[in-house]
Amino acid sequence: MFNQSYWPHPDRLFSSDNSTRSVARALYQEIRHLPIISPHGHTDPAWFADNQPFGNPAALLLQPDHYAFRMLHSQGISLESIGINSQDPSIKVEQDPRKAWQIFADNYFLFRGTPTRMWMDHAMTEVLGVDQPLNSKTAQGIYDHIDAQLKTEAFLPRSLYERFNIEVLATTETAVDTLKSHLKINASDWQGRVITTFRPDSVTDPYHPDFSAHMALLAEQTGEDVHQWSDYLTALRKRRAFFQSTGATATDHSYPTPYTTVLSKDTCQLLLTKALAGEISAEEAQQFCGHMLVEMARMSQEDGLVMQIHCGVYRNHNQSLLARFGADKGADIPLKAEFVHNLRPLLNEVGNDPNLTIILFTLDEDVYARELAPLAGHYPALKLGPAWWFHDSPEGMMRYRRMVTETAGFYNTVGFNDDTRAFLSIPARHDVARRVDCNFLASLVCEHRITEEEAFELAHELTSGLARKAYRL
Amino acid sequence: MFNQSYWPHPDRLFSSDNSTRSVARALYQEIRHLPIISPHGHTDPAWFADNQPFGNPAALLLQPDHYAFRMLHSQGISLESIGINSQDPSIKVEQDPRKAWQIFADNYFLFRGTPTRMWMDHAMTEVLGVDQPLNSKTAQGIYDHIDAQLKTEAFLPRSLYERFNIEVLATTETAVDTLKSHLKINASDWQGRVITTFRPDSVTDPYHPDFSAHMALLAEQTGEDVHQWSDYLTALRKRRAFFQSTGATATDHSYPTPYTTVLSKDTCQLLLTKALAGEISAEEAQQFCGHMLVEMARMSQEDGLVMQIHCGVYRNHNQSLLARFGADKGADIPLKAEFVHNLRPLLNEVGNDPNLTIILFTLDEDVYARELAPLAGHYPALKLGPAWWFHDSPEGMMRYRRMVTETAGFYNTVGFNDDTRAFLSIPARHDVARRVDCNFLASLVCEHRITEEEAFELAHELTSGLARKAYRL
Amino acid sequence: MFNQSYWPHPDRLFSSDNSTRSVARALYQEIRHLPIISPHGHTDPAWFADNQPFGNPAALLLQPDHYAFRMLHSQGISLESIGINSQDPSIKVEQDPRKAWQIFADNYFLFRGTPTRMWMDHAMTEVLGVDQPLNSKTAQGIYDHIDAQLKTEAFLPRSLYERFNIEVLATTETAVDTLKSHLKINASDWQGRVITTFRPDSVTDPYHPDFSAHMALLAEQTGEDVHQWSDYLTALRKRRAFFQSTGATATDHSYPTPYTTVLSKDTCQLLLTKALAGEISAEEAQQFCGHMLVEMARMSQEDGLVMQIHCGVYRNHNQSLLARFGADKGADIPLKAEFVHNLRPLLNEVGNDPNLTIILFTLDEDVYARELAPLAGHYPALKLGPAWWFHDSPEGMMRYRRMVTETAGFYNTVGFNDDTRAFLSIPARHDVARRVDCNFLASLVCEHRITEEEAFELAHELTSGLARKAYRL
Repeated sequence: MFNQSYWPHPDRLFSSDNSTRSVARALYQEIRHLPIISPHGHTDPAWFADNQPFGNPAALLLQPDHYAFRMLHSQGISLESIGINSQDPSIKVEQDPRKAWQIFADNYFLFRGTPTRMWMDHAMTEVLGVDQPLNSKTAQGIYDHIDAQLKTEAFLPRSLYERFNIEVLATTETAVDTLKSHLKINASDWQGRVITTFRPDSVTDPYHPDFSAHMALLAEQTGEDVHQWSDYLTALRKRRAFFQSTGATATDHSYPTPYTTVLSKDTCQLLLTKALAGEISAEEAQQFCGHMLVEMARMSQEDGLVMQIHCGVYRNHNQSLLARFGADKGADIPLKAEFVHNLRPLLNEVGNDPNLTIILFTLDEDVYARELAPLAGHYPALKLGPAWWFHDSPEGMMRYRRMVTETAGFYNTVGFNDDTRAFLSIPARHDVARRVDCNFLASLVCEHRITEEEAFELAHELTSGLARKAYRL
Repeated sequence: MFNQSYWPHPDRLFSSDNSTRSVARALYQEIRHLPIISPHGHTDPAWFADNQPFGNPAALLLQPDHYAFRMLHSQGISLESIGINSQDPSIKVEQDPRKAWQIFADNYFLFRGTPTRMWMDHAMTEVLGVDQPLNSKTAQGIYDHIDAQLKTEAFLPRSLYERFNIEVLATTETAVDTLKSHLKINASDWQGRVITTFRPDSVTDPYHPDFSAHMALLAEQTGEDVHQWSDYLTALRKRRAFFQSTGATATDHSYPTPYTTVLSKDTCQLLLTKALAGEISAEEAQQFCGHMLVEMARMSQEDGLVMQIHCGVYRNHNQSLLARFGADKGADIPLKAEFVHNLRPLLNEVGNDPNLTIILFTLDEDVYARELAPLAGHYPALKLGPAWWFHDSPEGMMRYRRMVTETAGFYNTVGFNDDTRAFLSIPARHDVARRVDCNFLASLVCEHRITEEEAFELAHELTSGLARKAYRL
Repeated sequence: MFNQSYWPHPDRLFSSDNSTRSVARALYQEIRHLPIISPHGHTDPAWFADNQPFGNPAALLLQPDHYAFRMLHSQGISLESIGINSQDPSIKVEQDPRKAWQIFADNYFLFRGTPTRMWMDHAMTEVLGVDQPLNSKTAQGIYDHIDAQLKTEAFLPRSLYERFNIEVLATTETAVDTLKSHLKINASDWQGRVITTFRPDSVTDPYHPDFSAHMALLAEQTGEDVHQWSDYLTALRKRRAFFQSTGATATDHSYPTPYTTVLSKDTCQLLLTKALAGEISAEEAQQFCGHMLVEMARMSQEDGLVMQIHCGVYRNHNQSLLARFGADKGADIPLKAEFVHNLRPLLNEVGNDPNLTIILFTLDEDVYARELAPLAGHYPALKLGPAWWFHDSPEGMMRYRRMVTETAGFYNTVGFNDDTRAFLSIPARHDVARRVDCNFLASLVCEHRITEEEAFELAHELTSGLARKAYRL
């Protein structure tokens, strides 16, 4: 029997202090049923276009979740044993999802104190109706239960979208994506709003592994000669317009650093030529990327797409894992970030434009109070994205609020992003964010730093108002 | 009607935990009425010398407050619309202070959760007797009320100084200031103690915009040939002595980094010559500044002036705003700081002198626990200044105490600085600091880390004892 | 009379919130009497080999404790006045331990809010039976009391070891130590387990002050020609085997940075030759050290010794103090740390080996959440050591748990290290760690983030399970 005193406890994540908890509860009651606005994430639009059943429990909950398998890997559990496909045909990968699931269950205690635990428990209990805690003994029973659920109508992607009370869900596609799933959804009579986000890294970063293939596609799709600087920009404009025509309201950009620079057209042409010839140096590539952020901002001034910048990760740090299993296997490690010098060229050109919105994200919490809050608390074009990735957790969100609010205020932030490819965790993630925000507001109320009336207004803003406004939804 | 359950709530900033709050209250009652010691700030000494009425509400509370207008600017409200004077005559600046005030009131909700909100509310209610919250509807009524107050005897600068129960108030002047207001105050029969602070950056930093004008003035005021290294030092000594003769007990120094170095006299002469000829490189200027910190420390060993170092800001980050409105318009952004290597040359020369006091400030909280507390917890000459600028806030102060105390103890800190040019916010700022300190001490008492008796002693020290001792007041 | 309401308060370090405190108490009751596992520290093995009485109170409690005298020094109290021996014969050092003790007592208030205060109070009350608080008046009485205690059988090192309920105590010796005390203990009929740790810095870091002397010793002890790269490695292997034969289960490595690199054998030979000739540059020495970390990891893969890395300190920052009093006089200052790039060469070679354990420590808390938790939450070979040195304190430990747990989980951490040469503080330090951990777990329980049952299991793991497993004890 599931320990009812534990989970899902109605007061989870609220302060143990009676007065704070009581205010937090009241705030949460007010906003818990508001629709989910998910303006940035990585779910697969084909789910909603095709509305086919999800696979088995391991394929749905374990194998795509880099939070889950990185922890198992850190404790010496091989990726092949939990069914992660390898690029190396000599590696024998476990094909039985029940065996992978059993290993996950046997080691579920490793997640104690982590957000993965909370999201998984929430997905299993609230979404999938599991009524026992996951462990070695319950593993197969729970597998059966989930597997059966996934085969029902109620667990088709569109049904879940509706049951989750999602108002809008943004996915992320490369600049050369055909957006066929989004077009199919738009053409259907389904009312769900699944929109794309324009992610041009593969055609703006000469060192992106897909750069040359995607530049060729870009030329083909737009009929532009991408070897000519001005035509290359036109090609990008055309793709942005196409994305926007299907519903996109935002772009997203990810490099190791948020370096920006403004180059002359001649220099741009030179670097573009070198990039296409595969002869660009790492330093020149950084110049090119840095200038392209400025170009993207200029285009956002023209077309109104909101610009997101997610920088500061050493991707695929584990060389042999990359060789054996490919990218995105839980070996991405945050890097020190620097925004004050890096963003200045960009900000000097567009930072004072109140009609432009640039949303900054970081994995280096050091910059919250030192750099990001002072920058966002000054420049009209800047807003701060929510606590990201490793910091999308109760402690991480609380640190974010405590370090950002006093300088940037609430109104230079943009609400929550779930930023996930784990569809079933979306309600859990939004619920965690709502609880943490309500608890933070309650602590301000109980220390008489804001009034209860203000806290109610702010709870609405943090849950949906700020996201709608910042992302122009 | 003002929401009495909210503000000014007698328990504001105290923990919502009953036992902690109860100890915090008791501590606060003990020290709340102690006189204000303000050993570092930027108020205008002419206010107290001339004792003329302050201007209108917008000119007093909004237009000089960079915390206030940076937040408005960040949300797309132009500086000209709130009456900030521009250097560009083509910009039409709002001349009606009532209109500027209305915009401020309309957007006052933006400050929720920020210290500006607390300071403003405190100034309006406690100092100016406003009895309604500021918003769009109450804006003009509150304007009228404040405007009328400011015309009364009770709101003249000297009356407020007395009402605020200020024991000593330090201002900051450049090395070539005539100190005429301080001399006038000293010559008057008024008993207030308004002292200056020696701030020589404009004659020690070759890249300071006033360097050449101020060096000429320095030569004129002292009769020294500032082209000769030894005479230049003599000139500085004379100015220090002059400042000290009017009451100064401290100096203040601000560069982008706390870099220090010890150069030979020949090198110093060479750099001085280049600096005066306008031919010094940026790197040479840094060498010069770094050596001048050491010279200033040597002079402090001679004359006993306490040395303050406020480093680590990228000033006037927003280029177009600087061009249009001039310096200090809320676009100063903190930088990463490094003290361990930078201060070593200085510390190796003077760090073990127990008769010297060097007070360090930072905007990079990362260095609190990593660098500053270990340095101040070792070197006799070093003390840590309070949480500064963006961190002069409830969360910022609490982080400071939690990160500094365990390694540096309380007795290597120096009490509170309001560091403000917003005179009416002085009682509010000291009140916030006292409340946060009492709350921190109360948390230590309730976790049985110090005794209640010790907490009472410490509350006195943090409020006035440490500041008096460190600043030799 | 000692203020009984204060110390030793049974609830010290527990939250003042009733429900959290109540859970913390219950958890603490469960684990408070578990034996002490001390897998890393700096006590003197001769104490346990020879079992002679400790010296006087000042020699035992004050003079070896760099936390204690660095604080006194920071407040202008000279090291000579408290009996710290100088290398400079012209300096008159206080010879009377009573006078040194009196100064310590007179200034004991300086330690308010620091862990030193807690450790000292615990040692004096719980271990030494002092029943008054230390201050100017009680100083000599307490001195007498302690002095008398130290002369009794019950206060001999082995008696205290047993009374402290120590299960295993690791000391740290250089690679060329004869380990005669450990051999003597092993040969004795005493049942205590005092094991060494292999610390090879003096024969792997060409800039270590003992490098040349210790390399000569290494050659002599092993019969290997340490001028030949492969023989030098053999010599190290022999010493590791010797250490292991006496009971060692771990190695320890300390450089300013955790830089690693993989060099060719030819390059290694070249650098070794230069190092032995005293002709190696600082940069080459760093290369050598960086490669030697990789060699040590390779040897750990062979022999199973657990590898500890303690990097990131500017040692002996105070030049004149170093000249006058020698190394380790409280002038060690933490440095910024960087692990993501620095460790990558090492991790790419050995990071995926689940049979290797590398335990990382840092004094730069910035890297907890940004670098260390993501690295340890991914690589099978990595574990995170506890909060170290300046952060071995209630606030420091709490920050560690809050910043590490959500990404690395509990099971990638290794329990507590006291890391001390202050033997009498060992029970105090473990008690503080247990209390803080129980309080942290209690806060998770009361926020319904883990169940109470899980918290009990975790309390055992954090107290002894994880340390036993990680250190292979």
